[in-house]
Amino acid sequence: MTVHIDKPKGAPQSVTTGPIQGSRKIYATPAGRPDIRVPYREIVLTDPSEAPVRVYDPSGPYTQDDAAIDLRQGLPLVRESWIAARHCAAVEPRPVKPEDNGNVSADALVASCPAERVVRRAAPGQIVTQYEFARAGIITEEMIYVAHRENLCREAMLSEAEAKIADGESFGAAIPPFITPEFVRQEVARGRAIIPANINHPELEPMAIGRNFLVKVNANIGNSAVVSTAADEVEKLVWAIRWGADTVMDLSTGRNIHNIRSWILRNSPVPIGTVPIYQALEKVGGDPVKLDWEVFKDTLIEQAEQGVDYFTIHAGVRLSYVPLTANRVTGIVSRGGSIMARWCLAHHKESFLYERFDEICEIMRAYDVSFSLGDGLRPGSIADANDAAQFAELETLGELTKIAWDKGCQVMIEGPGHVPMHKIKVNMDKQLRECGEAPFYTLGPLTTDIAPGYDHITSGIGAAMIGWYGTAMLCYVTPKEHLGLPNRDDVKTGVITYKIAAHAADLAKGHPAAQIRDDALSRARFDFRWEDQFNLSLDPDTARAYHDETLPKDAHKVAHFCSMCGPKFCSMKITQDLRAEVAAMSPEAQAQLAGMRAKSHEFQAGGGKLYVDQR
Amino acid sequence: MTVHIDKPKGAPQSVTTGPIQGSRKIYATPAGRPDIRVPYREIVLTDPSEAPVRVYDPSGPYTQDDAAIDLRQGLPLVRESWIAARHCAAVEPRPVKPEDNGNVSADALVASCPAERVVRRAAPGQIVTQYEFARAGIITEEMIYVAHRENLCREAMLSEAEAKIADGESFGAAIPPFITPEFVRQEVARGRAIIPANINHPELEPMAIGRNFLVKVNANIGNSAVVSTAADEVEKLVWAIRWGADTVMDLSTGRNIHNIRSWILRNSPVPIGTVPIYQALEKVGGDPVKLDWEVFKDTLIEQAEQGVDYFTIHAGVRLSYVPLTANRVTGIVSRGGSIMARWCLAHHKESFLYERFDEICEIMRAYDVSFSLGDGLRPGSIADANDAAQFAELETLGELTKIAWDKGCQVMIEGPGHVPMHKIKVNMDKQLRECGEAPFYTLGPLTTDIAPGYDHITSGIGAAMIGWYGTAMLCYVTPKEHLGLPNRDDVKTGVITYKIAAHAADLAKGHPAAQIRDDALSRARFDFRWEDQFNLSLDPDTARAYHDETLPKDAHKVAHFCSMCGPKFCSMKITQDLRAEVAAMSPEAQAQLAGMRAKSHEFQAGGGKLYVDQR
Repeated sequence: MTVHIDKPKGAPQSVTTGPIQGSRKIYATPAGRPDIRVPYREIVLTDPSEAPVRVYDPSGPYTQDDAAIDLRQGLPLVRESWIAARHCAAVEPRPVKPEDNGNVSADALVASCPAERVVRRAAPGQIVTQYEFARAGIITEEMIYVAHRENLCREAMLSEAEAKIADGESFGAAIPPFITPEFVRQEVARGRAIIPANINHPELEPMAIGRNFLVKVNANIGNSAVVSTAADEVEKLVWAIRWGADTVMDLSTGRNIHNIRSWILRNSPVPIGTVPIYQALEKVGGDPVKLDWEVFKDTLIEQAEQGVDYFTIHAGVRLSYVPLTANRVTGIVSRGGSIMARWCLAHHKESFLYERFDEICEIMRAYDVSFSLGDGLRPGSIADANDAAQFAELETLGELTKIAWDKGCQVMIEGPGHVPMHKIKVNMDKQLRECGEAPFYTLGPLTTDIAPGYDHITSGIGAAMIGWYGTAMLCYVTPKEHLGLPNRDDVKTGVITYKIAAHAADLAKGHPAAQIRDDALSRARFDFRWEDQFNLSLDPDTARAYHDETLPKDAHKVAHFCSMCGPKFCSMKITQDLRAEVAAMSPEAQAQLAGMRAKSHEFQAGGGKLYVDQR
Repeated sequence: MTVHIDKPKGAPQSVTTGPIQGSRKIYATPAGRPDIRVPYREIVLTDPSEAPVRVYDPSGPYTQDDAAIDLRQGLPLVRESWIAARHCAAVEPRPVKPEDNGNVSADALVASCPAERVVRRAAPGQIVTQYEFARAGIITEEMIYVAHRENLCREAMLSEAEAKIADGESFGAAIPPFITPEFVRQEVARGRAIIPANINHPELEPMAIGRNFLVKVNANIGNSAVVSTAADEVEKLVWAIRWGADTVMDLSTGRNIHNIRSWILRNSPVPIGTVPIYQALEKVGGDPVKLDWEVFKDTLIEQAEQGVDYFTIHAGVRLSYVPLTANRVTGIVSRGGSIMARWCLAHHKESFLYERFDEICEIMRAYDVSFSLGDGLRPGSIADANDAAQFAELETLGELTKIAWDKGCQVMIEGPGHVPMHKIKVNMDKQLRECGEAPFYTLGPLTTDIAPGYDHITSGIGAAMIGWYGTAMLCYVTPKEHLGLPNRDDVKTGVITYKIAAHAADLAKGHPAAQIRDDALSRARFDFRWEDQFNLSLDPDTARAYHDETLPKDAHKVAHFCSMCGPKFCSMKITQDLRAEVAAMSPEAQAQLAGMRAKSHEFQAGGGKLYVDQR
């Protein structure tokens, strides 16, 4: 289904709405807090003995059955009453300036989103960030929300004992059997998790990023100087979160950047991140050398007032590190990194991001914009992985993390890049050590350079591994990486690939609830419940379409075989026959068969019962 | 380009030929052996200062410029003179029986490939297998061929010192700087590598599978009872090896199985594997209970005479292990495993594959058919990974490996399946231990069950990891896994995904030549040599097509930017500007800048030279 709206010039025209096939949106309420409604996607199965499976759902109201979406109004204000009850002052917003939209001419100007919001900042002397509340021992509504959300309703599906026995190797992470609001508070207070949640983004459905929570996925959107418009970008947001993106970064450059962002923010249920230096650069005509603190500071305030939830700040690119990139095969590949390196060298001065870091913290704290400390010197090729430049910057990011915490800010750290498999864990271990377990947020890493067109896969491998080792959020890579701008299909492919990586990581870490969905799907597979298999998958549409290609008839959706082996050659069918055969044997015959077993200690321990019911 | 031929009924009509875009086929000759011509694919770059990159090429004569392919004649007989010089006896082949082709009626019979070949077997008392030659200290032509092939011509590109310094973590593998024929012999003699090469497959271009060689990829093809014909299957073979499959398994079931295989073998430059129990089952009407040793033995001889290079034999599925699968979520998912389990239970007897293993060895030795000891009890879901059934079978495979070696046979071992990341390494370590380092050949493993439609990716993650840990060959998984039969696009996607996994593994193991291609591609990327970037990629067609989507003009193929960031926002462009700027500085200014550096010990050690030439 698609919602059409009257459009201001250049404004979004339609977005994708309606539930994912086979799922329905539900909201659940934490005990004692009827005002808090936490969203889930529930997959109801055809076998009545199977409990519905609830999965984490970042897609917002767009996937409701009766989604009443009006992009001009923006989304419901989930957090408004919570924020209003805190000590935040309504302020007169900074007036929009022509350069905010790239000095675009009137006829090319995209209108701003007309949804009206109070603009706030911290009142003097008052705490405002989730980090400050956590340190003060205060559990915010966001923490309660997040705790419920992270549990995936597993209280209903698992006993405490069951939740504890999930096996895994977490490399020092400590995911508890159940997540409580107090646990969330502790994690935020330690700096080990963040809840990116600008007080000017009341539409946000809060979420956490941290190694003791589900591994998250970020999708990048953004127009560029070459192609794409506001309409494309808002739909990309909605499309990306539909398939599971937990946060979205708006990497727009070029014109109308301020107004396009207003549409994105007012209609985003997920945290929005940006790289403010991009817009600052636009404001000075694209020449890095002309950047200065004033234009950057102004851009921070502009975006913080709009409601951006986290900023990538490349404050670790110091003048003295630039020479370390000299012998690299691919130099500096981060846009922000190359801009700051250029600035430093041209002025022969230390980076103003580094020198003004205290002031940056003060601005970001006032709106609770989280830091995403950028890895401006990340490697852009296998040859450059884990080099002196990369690690020098990472050490500086560790130093800055502590300053930001002291200033009351939430912080996460960006990571590489291109890294061969055997060098991935070193990155994770060093990040944890240098940055005091602040959440790591990595791009890939790509594990080889030789597959342009498939870099969602080269990087999905590295993402799964680094997610397992402890990375809290994985920034997706699409098939178009290095080649062109992703289209709709690319965005979906990128998100699904990264949901695979994140989930594989959750499983390997031993997340107590992660395997519930795998097991439900595998049981459906073994029982030939094709519809359940499709609906439990990350992408029901594609799974169904692939099955239809060879066996299109509805009858085949209940067939006890598939096209791979055909009706008489199916191992699962043979196994089921085999089970039935054994079940029909006398207890004595079963016992005799069991007696032939030479090896199974488990079997003996299980009482020697040969075939038992699976559920 | 497509070659059309006159067709016997049901015979293949055309296959894809011609070079991969941007590459040319070359042949190189080991010193002193002008009769041995080893194929490579050479990628010539547009920058004259860049050496051409030679890559491993399993695609056979199909990718020659002037490919003169006549499927009725079969491929050139690369090995004929080598085999003829050994002590093999020409034998009268077993007559083809109606049941070999599924008792198909005359009008539905696919003609056999008319190419005539001498059928041979070992002469009495003479050695015949690569293993036996290796043990006897004899270096075969196949070993010389393989040694040259595995070096990727790196003698021309790397000094011994450079080849030694490739970093990596090989987990006990021992890849030498350069591969010699004697090294190949030693590896084969130790059972740590195999060269699957039936003496009745003279068209074969020899290749090795072992942890001290490049990680290999297998692609499965095969008709099934539901769809597809001979024409499809031969083209799938040619298509799969075009994109890099190192071996191909023909998993056909149903009718015309013998005759379709004749077309595949006579036209395959890569080893062909089969699962003989599938055809044996066809011969007894599809009922596992009716199988017996005689029909199985007859099938082994039939296929060995045709030239099949390796057989999957599920001899590790013992009667006493069947009960260990009782509590599994997905029971037995291997077709061969479920067939044998059914047989064992129905007859209440030990598997005839296990009991007759000596005889199986004697048959396979006589033709040098390699064992691929099947993992009939591999897990089919995350829940069943690394369970008692799986590991009991693996221990038996270890026992059988030693028997096969004693009988003079080459052996590799099949592995799972569905395994979460944290349980993958245990598989590899146990396999190496139980099976005396015989090559491991794994399917995936899939690292989660929740992404049908994307199982090339869920398994590509596991494949890369287990390849790194020591698996010698990775069996591909296509996007259609669990859902339907792969089509042409799926086969390509599966092969490319697994080439990524294999290459990522080679890099991580520290293979001395693996990074040459990554570095060449990354330099091309940094220099904006778009054509070189496409041509060096695993799939030049897709890379180019993606680039064309946003920047279709030829001029953009030399543009110093791409559509992601646009002309003025490109980090690589900025870095290049920055390098030029520093290069123009006086030595004193460079030294001053260098003096500001606080951290780089490497820099100091390098003599303080700021920007040096990359090549």
